[in-house]
Amino acid sequence: MRYLITFSYDGTNFYGYQKQPNLRTVEDELESALTYINGGVDVIIHSSGRTDRKVHAINQKAHFDLNKEIPLYKLKDALNTYTKEDIYIKNIQIVENDFHARYMVSKKEYIYKINVGEYNPFERNYVFQFNKKLDIETMQKEIKDLIGTHDFSSFANKEDKKESYIRTIYDAFIKKDEDIITITFIGDGFLKYQVRNMVGALIETSTKKRKIKEILDKKDRSSYGKIAPPEGLYLKNVEY
Amino acid sequence: MRYLITFSYDGTNFYGYQKQPNLRTVEDELESALTYINGGVDVIIHSSGRTDRKVHAINQKAHFDLNKEIPLYKLKDALNTYTKEDIYIKNIQIVENDFHARYMVSKKEYIYKINVGEYNPFERNYVFQFNKKLDIETMQKEIKDLIGTHDFSSFANKEDKKESYIRTIYDAFIKKDEDIITITFIGDGFLKYQVRNMVGALIETSTKKRKIKEILDKKDRSSYGKIAPPEGLYLKNVEY
Repeated sequence: MRYLITFSYDGTNFYGYQKQPNLRTVEDELESALTYINGGVDVIIHSSGRTDRKVHAINQKAHFDLNKEIPLYKLKDALNTYTKEDIYIKNIQIVENDFHARYMVSKKEYIYKINVGEYNPFERNYVFQFNKKLDIETMQKEIKDLIGTHDFSSFANKEDKKESYIRTIYDAFIKKDEDIITITFIGDGFLKYQVRNMVGALIETSTKKRKIKEILDKKDRSSYGKIAPPEGLYLKNVEY
Repeated sequence: MRYLITFSYDGTNFYGYQKQPNLRTVEDELESALTYINGGVDVIIHSSGRTDRKVHAINQKAHFDLNKEIPLYKLKDALNTYTKEDIYIKNIQIVENDFHARYMVSKKEYIYKINVGEYNPFERNYVFQFNKKLDIETMQKEIKDLIGTHDFSSFANKEDKKESYIRTIYDAFIKKDEDIITITFIGDGFLKYQVRNMVGALIETSTKKRKIKEILDKKDRSSYGKIAPPEGLYLKNVEY
């Protein structure tokens, strides 16, 4: 039986999603719980993709196979019992045997939160604290140039060699609610660090008058400054 | 010069407000920062009162004396630099030399947050997760019996011997916003564990049909069940 789970996690205390020896990761925590539930027989989990250290997920998805059929509500309870409080399994469903949580993704949505107001200790791990002024209107105009099918080399991690840096962004927009700016990106998939790099560049359209179109056209990461920090980033949704 | 600071803290990673040997406390963190700023000469800080382990503060207040006059914005910056990210000094003002942050309190406001919806890992340290149904209307009716001047022995910590258990609650009410129930208490002062005990009893007015008036009249802590956990509690305001 192939199961698809939808889960959230607070990335603060994880060394990212992907397994690494001797470090606490989301993947390892879930596989350990599943293997325990599976009577000690290893279970491999396939997520929609990785998230970096300190990045959060609201609706991450992953599939795995179990030889036995477990009632879904029992499996959900067991997974929530055997994972710590910063992971929560929201939903489990049975999917076709040829379903794949990574290769069949049609759409991913990320959001990035920036606090331009006073520092709030309760939000320290959940927003990027930005103490300079941001010109939201300029950023709202510039973000539109990211929509569409482009070569996103300028927003890729230099060490991350890919066959293609072409991705499609279906929609991207910025909303401001009191002191919190939320930037949303919906696309067919994103390169490693792409969203945080796009946010870093967007901030510079305000602070350094850079133009997104010029940065895109250069196909070079060095055409703007800093990557935005991980704590403001959330994987919000994955669609198939 | 006597200074009054208003500050917030996320109580999750502190062993409470009050200093204890070899444990991380809010009081110790602030005094260490102040002593450092004061060139190594000890500074004693007097807060409006303690908060327990894992309890939060949105606007806690405290006073201290410094022999030198430091511009307020510089002192604020220095204090925020030398304390960790889970404490934030919001405001500093100069007060009269006979001002006392504890003895001159006229009003304190606490709020308590309960999540009756689905578990949310991002809120795990900031709300009490309650998975049974709560009859808010009953609780809203019962909470009114806490308003006024009463002997709150039934809501005190048994080990906390006081001359008087009489306190005045000026206002107390319950609001529900989606799945979050917020209970507010405004009073002249509260006994150790009083707010969390009142919340525990209020929950039992719904789940066990207990009556607040009967609990109050018994003047005995054993007339109801559990104390509410600390993570839902916030010291919201202190007035002089």
